[in-house]
Amino acid sequence: MPDVFDVIVIGAGPAGEVAAGRIAAAGLSAAVIEKELAGGECSYWACIPSKALLRPLDLAGEVARVPGLTLGGLVVDDVLARRDEMVSNFDDSGQVQWIESAGVAFFRGKGRLKGPREVEVLSGEGSSSSSSLTLTARHAVVVATGSSPVIPPIPGLAEARPWTNREATGVRAVPQRLLVIGGGVVGCEMAQALHGLGAKETTLVVRGGALLERVEPYAGEAVARSLTEQGVRVLMRETVERVERPVPGGEITVHLGGGEILRVDEILVATGRRAVTADIGLSTVGLDDHQPVRVDDSMRATGVEDGWLYAVGDVNGISLLTHMGKYQARVCSDVIVARAKGTADDLPGMRDLADPIGSPQVIFTDPQVCAVGRTEAQARSEGFDVRVVEYEMGDVAGGSLMGEGYRGRAKAVVDERRRALLGVTFVAPAASDLLHGATIAVTAGVSLDDLWHAVPAFPTVSEVWLRLLEAYGM
Amino acid sequence: MPDVFDVIVIGAGPAGEVAAGRIAAAGLSAAVIEKELAGGECSYWACIPSKALLRPLDLAGEVARVPGLTLGGLVVDDVLARRDEMVSNFDDSGQVQWIESAGVAFFRGKGRLKGPREVEVLSGEGSSSSSSLTLTARHAVVVATGSSPVIPPIPGLAEARPWTNREATGVRAVPQRLLVIGGGVVGCEMAQALHGLGAKETTLVVRGGALLERVEPYAGEAVARSLTEQGVRVLMRETVERVERPVPGGEITVHLGGGEILRVDEILVATGRRAVTADIGLSTVGLDDHQPVRVDDSMRATGVEDGWLYAVGDVNGISLLTHMGKYQARVCSDVIVARAKGTADDLPGMRDLADPIGSPQVIFTDPQVCAVGRTEAQARSEGFDVRVVEYEMGDVAGGSLMGEGYRGRAKAVVDERRRALLGVTFVAPAASDLLHGATIAVTAGVSLDDLWHAVPAFPTVSEVWLRLLEAYGM
Repeated sequence: MPDVFDVIVIGAGPAGEVAAGRIAAAGLSAAVIEKELAGGECSYWACIPSKALLRPLDLAGEVARVPGLTLGGLVVDDVLARRDEMVSNFDDSGQVQWIESAGVAFFRGKGRLKGPREVEVLSGEGSSSSSSLTLTARHAVVVATGSSPVIPPIPGLAEARPWTNREATGVRAVPQRLLVIGGGVVGCEMAQALHGLGAKETTLVVRGGALLERVEPYAGEAVARSLTEQGVRVLMRETVERVERPVPGGEITVHLGGGEILRVDEILVATGRRAVTADIGLSTVGLDDHQPVRVDDSMRATGVEDGWLYAVGDVNGISLLTHMGKYQARVCSDVIVARAKGTADDLPGMRDLADPIGSPQVIFTDPQVCAVGRTEAQARSEGFDVRVVEYEMGDVAGGSLMGEGYRGRAKAVVDERRRALLGVTFVAPAASDLLHGATIAVTAGVSLDDLWHAVPAFPTVSEVWLRLLEAYGM
Repeated sequence: MPDVFDVIVIGAGPAGEVAAGRIAAAGLSAAVIEKELAGGECSYWACIPSKALLRPLDLAGEVARVPGLTLGGLVVDDVLARRDEMVSNFDDSGQVQWIESAGVAFFRGKGRLKGPREVEVLSGEGSSSSSSLTLTARHAVVVATGSSPVIPPIPGLAEARPWTNREATGVRAVPQRLLVIGGGVVGCEMAQALHGLGAKETTLVVRGGALLERVEPYAGEAVARSLTEQGVRVLMRETVERVERPVPGGEITVHLGGGEILRVDEILVATGRRAVTADIGLSTVGLDDHQPVRVDDSMRATGVEDGWLYAVGDVNGISLLTHMGKYQARVCSDVIVARAKGTADDLPGMRDLADPIGSPQVIFTDPQVCAVGRTEAQARSEGFDVRVVEYEMGDVAGGSLMGEGYRGRAKAVVDERRRALLGVTFVAPAASDLLHGATIAVTAGVSLDDLWHAVPAFPTVSEVWLRLLEAYGM
């Protein structure tokens, strides 16, 4: 295997794979280095397994709303087996095969910068490696090392070996009594999944007064209501003060800030993630080891002489979402190829336009939360001339056909000056594929006058689009 | 009740209701005349009840693909009761209340033109009315009389009193042996619904070589395959020569063109619909009683002096879809109001732009067929510089998460000159809300370069959008 490549990518998660693949497809030589599994967090310990666990629960919720249809039951072992299948039984050989078939050299090990355009590959046990190899990049190095969960400094917590997204999505035996710390996406999705799969007592502790604080407030309220109805105990404005687990793997005693003492079998920590920047050699090229890698809108790291370093995905801290990491990787790889070949590097696909507009996201709770663009509060704080319209999705014929008691709410944030959408949120069951229309409309700046001629098919839930425009006064 | 109105609408189906409601909301006086139920075919005998019958079957199909989840069973009586609830037990009082609360005068009876701006309301038994009343319109009359099913001239068929969409969607006892004539939307949807709800032998007879001939050929092929797998016998290039039903309500003997003889309990005729133009007085204003009312792009009837007559919905023959009728009604009512008030009548919402682009449609079979714009064949025959891309939806992560054996196919027809979409088709289960993004993109002419920045959320089925663009070469 050669040790000089046009481009070297550190990290074969979704963003790294896409970057390396597109670079190779464009005719440059590319290498990718991965210390765990090719495919990354998303494929084995995040998006894929969590959705595999949530899908039967979502569907059970839909069935419950349709008269005439009843469920026979939920066989948890079969759900877990399906999850295992979806994560390829934690075996990345298929993924490595794909990478190699794309013409990319795959190196198993830890990638670490050791100066301009040089990357060490440390194989063996993590950073205390038994062997190393140094690769040189002719044109660029792309950092795509992702993020890792933050364990808050609560006394006794680290020692209690709490679950993170990895253990939760990889669950083999559902804990009877579960404490979830954190009301973001992972906390809400996995509280719902594990409770639905059999946890008897699930408690969700949230420091703030709301769940899902990055989306419209009504979304978090709907999810809190739903989790409560499902039997999850949601404690807002509550903290965990101290944790004791005297016997490894045994019962955990949890002291809450409000004074209550809980006894649980496992704790899932879901209090945020941090860019993986420590120990990847950023300081050897003049960057901070403890901050996300700052990039410009071509994903090129700022403050690196000659501009040969790029960063895509979670590690740049812009948007911790698989699809945005892959998008950034498309932008980045096309730019790198153009710059390497000396062709125009400012074609339409070569700048990250989507992140500043507000990245789309689906949160797979019940109801699902689907949002793109700016929330009302963001738009107002940025000084836009905002008008907001909302509509009850259960009042749309297509919604009521989904089932008895189907409920949902749509909200559109209109930029009055452009007469176009700044943001759209749908909160409803099974709404995930409603979002992309909003993503197109928000991203492309489609005017309300053009949206008026985009007629939703009857009777689909999408008719809420018409209702929103009518509510606006059209 | 006065007998002079600014605008008179004949027919209170979806299109007529919307026209009258928007006209009244704009401050003109409006009357609407309905001989059957306010809400029209769609609400009682078409879209709504058919989807109420199909929804549990769709969902059962989804459950069957998700390991760990099993169905307890399908209780047909509960499905029928839900259908009855969705059609308000065939009682339109709520609908009439809505019309009146919108400030529209409601007349029950048959509306018939009797000269310029004059409309008779015949109440009592159909056209052989017991009483009549004449209304006068100051500004406009809108014809919104819809369409009715065509019964083909097959010997014995009319005498056998076959089912149409009305009896099929209003089913009380599912026939054991059913013959469906016609492979269009009604034929396919209702064959699936009635077979799924318990018909033991369902035979679908289609004159041509394909189902669903107005959409991309692969859609009809997928539905034919699926119906066959569900146990429906699909006979292509077959005809019904003769029908005998000696005892009313008894067994029917069906002679097929190929020589086979079938014995069935009911026949559903689904061979198309015809605009309701006979006996509505079109000849009193110089129009043909036997043709759809031809209109311009403001929905104004052509060939009527002073331009006071309009036609929206099925009766103009443009697009026999509820949502397009309602859309035409919005165009039409805004134009009428503008012309009545002497204000600009060419604002952005005042022309039918959507129909010529290709109306969106969802066919609620399993798989669902969701299409907007032109098919490849249409686009080619119209001389566009066409490029086509297709993608297997089961190969998208969001698709495989839908369930084991999830299959679907997306096809995009690109106008190479504009580098924008002419048409998009999705054929997959539960895909109905995928369509609206395509409708926005096709209608607003969003460029592929803009679509590239509209990032589909991972892992949703919508990621097929990315795959289509990649398949295009982006």
